Amino acid sequence: MSNGDIFVGEIIGTAILILFGAGVCAAVTLRHSKARASGWVVIAFGWGFGVLAGAYTAAPLSGGHLNPAVTLGIAVDTGEWGKVWVYLLGQFAGAMLGAVLCYLTYFAQFQANVRRTGTTDGTEGTDATDDGPVPTLGVFSTIPEIRNPVANLVTEIIATVGLVLPVLAFGLTEGLGESGTLVLIVSLLVVGIGLSLGGPTGYAINPARDLGPRIVHTFLPIPNKGTSDWGYAWIPVAGPLIGGALAGLVYNLAF
Amino acid sequence: MSNGDIFVGEIIGTAILILFGAGVCAAVTLRHSKARASGWVVIAFGWGFGVLAGAYTAAPLSGGHLNPAVTLGIAVDTGEWGKVWVYLLGQFAGAMLGAVLCYLTYFAQFQANVRRTGTTDGTEGTDATDDGPVPTLGVFSTIPEIRNPVANLVTEIIATVGLVLPVLAFGLTEGLGESGTLVLIVSLLVVGIGLSLGGPTGYAINPARDLGPRIVHTFLPIPNKGTSDWGYAWIPVAGPLIGGALAGLVYNLAF
Amino acid sequence: MSNGDIFVGEIIGTAILILFGAGVCAAVTLRHSKARASGWVVIAFGWGFGVLAGAYTAAPLSGGHLNPAVTLGIAVDTGEWGKVWVYLLGQFAGAMLGAVLCYLTYFAQFQANVRRTGTTDGTEGTDATDDGPVPTLGVFSTIPEIRNPVANLVTEIIATVGLVLPVLAFGLTEGLGESGTLVLIVSLLVVGIGLSLGGPTGYAINPARDLGPRIVHTFLPIPNKGTSDWGYAWIPVAGPLIGGALAGLVYNLAF
Amino acid sequence: MSNGDIFVGEIIGTAILILFGAGVCAAVTLRHSKARASGWVVIAFGWGFGVLAGAYTAAPLSGGHLNPAVTLGIAVDTGEWGKVWVYLLGQFAGAMLGAVLCYLTYFAQFQANVRRTGTTDGTEGTDATDDGPVPTLGVFSTIPEIRNPVANLVTEIIATVGLVLPVLAFGLTEGLGESGTLVLIVSLLVVGIGLSLGGPTGYAINPARDLGPRIVHTFLPIPNKGTSDWGYAWIPVAGPLIGGALAGLVYNLAF
Repeated sequence: MSNGDIFVGEIIGTAILILFGAGVCAAVTLRHSKARASGWVVIAFGWGFGVLAGAYTAAPLSGGHLNPAVTLGIAVDTGEWGKVWVYLLGQFAGAMLGAVLCYLTYFAQFQANVRRTGTTDGTEGTDATDDGPVPTLGVFSTIPEIRNPVANLVTEIIATVGLVLPVLAFGLTEGLGESGTLVLIVSLLVVGIGLSLGGPTGYAINPARDLGPRIVHTFLPIPNKGTSDWGYAWIPVAGPLIGGALAGLVYNLAF
Repeated sequence: MSNGDIFVGEIIGTAILILFGAGVCAAVTLRHSKARASGWVVIAFGWGFGVLAGAYTAAPLSGGHLNPAVTLGIAVDTGEWGKVWVYLLGQFAGAMLGAVLCYLTYFAQFQANVRRTGTTDGTEGTDATDDGPVPTLGVFSTIPEIRNPVANLVTEIIATVGLVLPVLAFGLTEGLGESGTLVLIVSLLVVGIGLSLGGPTGYAINPARDLGPRIVHTFLPIPNKGTSDWGYAWIPVAGPLIGGALAGLVYNLAF
Repeated sequence: MSNGDIFVGEIIGTAILILFGAGVCAAVTLRHSKARASGWVVIAFGWGFGVLAGAYTAAPLSGGHLNPAVTLGIAVDTGEWGKVWVYLLGQFAGAMLGAVLCYLTYFAQFQANVRRTGTTDGTEGTDATDDGPVPTLGVFSTIPEIRNPVANLVTEIIATVGLVLPVLAFGLTEGLGESGTLVLIVSLLVVGIGLSLGGPTGYAINPARDLGPRIVHTFLPIPNKGTSDWGYAWIPVAGPLIGGALAGLVYNLAF
Repeated sequence: MSNGDIFVGEIIGTAILILFGAGVCAAVTLRHSKARASGWVVIAFGWGFGVLAGAYTAAPLSGGHLNPAVTLGIAVDTGEWGKVWVYLLGQFAGAMLGAVLCYLTYFAQFQANVRRTGTTDGTEGTDATDDGPVPTLGVFSTIPEIRNPVANLVTEIIATVGLVLPVLAFGLTEGLGESGTLVLIVSLLVVGIGLSLGGPTGYAINPARDLGPRIVHTFLPIPNKGTSDWGYAWIPVAGPLIGGALAGLVYNLAF
């Protein structure tokens, strides 16, 4: 694969991943969305099928990593570091592009994120207490439920090992690659990580997924957008990188 | 594939798609349905598995496009326009047939869509405030949460690119076509689009899916059916066509 | 396939199907179940994965029909009627066996289906109004939301065509059979039928699935079990048989 | 496969299974989790995708049993008992490791499991009645809804037959093994068992899954952790072992 193909593939694939992933967070949390308050199962499947869409699209160009932790885990295992920078550039650029696309998709919803001063809008049903703007960072980046740097970091490390170790091992499972089923499995694995390990921190498990959209959130002109919470930003970058490297080491030793 | 096979395949496949898709909207929104108020996850999986059923059925005859945006995206990419009209005819005819089949499936529910004037019907449980007819257009066609033509159009364009670009790229993914997994992937992709990008407009992403059933809704003798909302009808046609063409262009350039 | 293999395969496969399908209805509707009131999405996936379990298990012995409507549709299409009676015998015997297994699995829950006369059982939480026995037929057989024989019959016919027509067409889809993906597709198709077309009647779409467990319900010593509703029993038998035959005809003409 | 590979594969695979499975129970039941109270569908898919992750990872090393009941069923069917002890050792060690990893992932949530004495913590919303510690054994091991040893044992036996009989039969289904789809099917089967048969006892269906984490729960320093309920512990060991052996016998006779 040429550097150009890798770069284009990772940009397109990661943009699709973040469009779907940030999109499902917008769908569930923003007012005036048909999926509002539809629950954690929607969040987890939305992110998983974002991996499905992005990774299958990127696969013929770049193999569809879409995640610096995956790229790092593969590099640690194989010892081939020459193209890592191309993957990372594409992933961060794609994540930022995807965040902008999500903003455009939910533009009217973001614009409507204002304090209501008396309304007859029937779309809000009986939701009478819900009359102020909502914080919007959760659409773009992860926010821990309990703010505890060590515990949050450990959660992200373990969840990322739970992603990257199986992904590395899948390459060995007979017939998986040839049958085209590989990405389907990985996408359901990501659904599983969300359901099982996403509770404490919202499962970044991907530095580009968290940092790229956080940068975009900082600059977007969203009404009442709230904080971009840069004090937490290092954890969903460091945790997944440590987890990815750790998975590469474990895999290299055990398999 | 002969024109006759394409036409028959697209009619049958699109009819199944709309039967399932409109059906799940009826299931969730109409009173006296066992799936009433079962949420957005049911809507999204119902439409996705409608693609599964319709596309696998149509595949041996027409390849199973079932969507003018997909047909347009393929034509823009390949430059082959000769059979596009056959696909479109079949898709719109099938969408209308599917809408009628959904009406017949939920006939008793539609007939019961009347104002209640004192009832002892135990099936409605504690839903005491729910005593008038409900609008029925949402079973057949999309309705935006916030009515904003430019924003709604942008949402439909992006969501359709999110469908058609992966669909085009899947053809390149090794082993996918041969293993029969392709349509399964596409159907889960459609679930993902619904979960993630359906919040603002209800994700038409398919001109036949929206326009065909809207025509049927205009003529069906449903009690208290409410408006067919023709003022909005151009957006879920134009948006997906623009998105499909755009995806064809991007694919042709990038891959 | 020998008659003995077909008979054993259909008994085991249909028993597993009904164990899972009746089981999920018990899980969602009976008190003292961890899945109580978990909604329509659980019902639909439970039945679909029952097809997955039963059909894969039966596949090497009988091909895994598990449904007289499927057997009938294949016979109408192929004109081969010689083994139909073996399939039907196995299917009805298996459905009755599965219903008994479901009863045993939820034995304590069925035994607890009594009027409570003051309780300090903490497991029922704040569900204070829920103090009487619940009807149990819904665990075993289908009950329409609105009782209208013609409409109910039409619903079952259309839903069964929506099952059997794709099942017949799947045989033509390249690579599906060889890759083992066929039954997975069919099981997700059954999930989709439940989500989309199950609202009015609870989607029997299978005469054995409804009649077998209804017979078992009639004889089981369940406390406060309520009616077995034999007045409705012909519809979930006749509808699926008509639908299966119709699907065989349409398939034979169109493909 | 060497004893070393089997041991390492079963440790890693079972650890991943329990990390995901106990994880999803933590996600749904502990306070300060984003998935709190997200329902039975999340529990069932979380465990199923834990099988997906663990079994695919272990497959190249040990075949990915991850469950003494599966190992026993295969041994009863094939008569090969020589490596059973290696599988069991790996499974129990892995289950304990996975339980510890789950504890670390949800460390901050477990630490916050205390009685609140006046709080302004906005994360708990309107959940005003929820002010005491919650029992934590349910994260690690199964607890029956109705305590009835015979009924609970029967439930576990039937549910385990529902797992192991299809797993044994899948090996015969043409093309399943070669295409890499096998583990995907098994994982969805486990989702189905959870949805359909998990209501009464919480579906251990795996002695290592229940006993290993129960031992860990006994020793972990969780605040207000509540009982480890050793009186019930024999049922989710004996039931699955009986069920696994029974499935091996039935399979050997019928297929």
